[in-house]
Amino acid sequence: MFSLHPRLKADTFLVKKLQTSSLYLMNDCRYKWLILVPEIADLSELHQLNAAEFASVMNEIKKTSQLLADLYTPKKINVGALGNMVDQLHIHVIARNEDDFAWPGPVWGNGNSIPYTEQLRAEITKTIINKLTG
Amino acid sequence: MFSLHPRLKADTFLVKKLQTSSLYLMNDCRYKWLILVPEIADLSELHQLNAAEFASVMNEIKKTSQLLADLYTPKKINVGALGNMVDQLHIHVIARNEDDFAWPGPVWGNGNSIPYTEQLRAEITKTIINKLTG
Repeated sequence: MFSLHPRLKADTFLVKKLQTSSLYLMNDCRYKWLILVPEIADLSELHQLNAAEFASVMNEIKKTSQLLADLYTPKKINVGALGNMVDQLHIHVIARNEDDFAWPGPVWGNGNSIPYTEQLRAEITKTIINKLTG
Repeated sequence: MFSLHPRLKADTFLVKKLQTSSLYLMNDCRYKWLILVPEIADLSELHQLNAAEFASVMNEIKKTSQLLADLYTPKKINVGALGNMVDQLHIHVIARNEDDFAWPGPVWGNGNSIPYTEQLRAEITKTIINKLTG
């Protein structure tokens, strides 16, 4: 049975359940950093998804990427499925800008995260949900 | 008109042209590191691909990921579309192991690449082409 990896649970907030994945906000206000977690047990690699699941998750990546582009007009979107530390399949979709902390490097392993205030987290979550359902 | 970004041209070897992307080997023998470049002009983001192109490129990512898993049985596959330095859309697909140089961090921006010998490059390229066409 699927259950969210404890590390992902500790580091994120649920934004919304989508068709195959749930969408989470990374608790690091240095970036607009979303994470998709397909709710399928014992999965660590993209290529392990069956054809229907794969198409659905890829569509969720596209939608999430477009959403960040539309809302925040970043310089670049970074999409990554790494999983070296947390082997449960999860896909990072991150809005990047030339003035952000890690630019032009990757965000992973780059300094310490800065948690959201409750107010800012609630605002961003609402904005994203409105965009997804609007 | 599409032409390969000079930085990608300098850092990689062509392995094979696929349906939508060409597949390249990164010239860094520390990892089995492949790069897919969709041959479409003026493209920097995955979500800019139209539906048919997107499905084709996602299929090429899946195939490349499966290929590395089958050939090298790595601990993890890392898939990433970043583009902070080279804005032409390109997707990294990298076989990772616990004893590799950057583990468990990402490979990007982590030390200096170590070029292949001509012999090793030829062997790996042949192995990958055989797997793709076999």
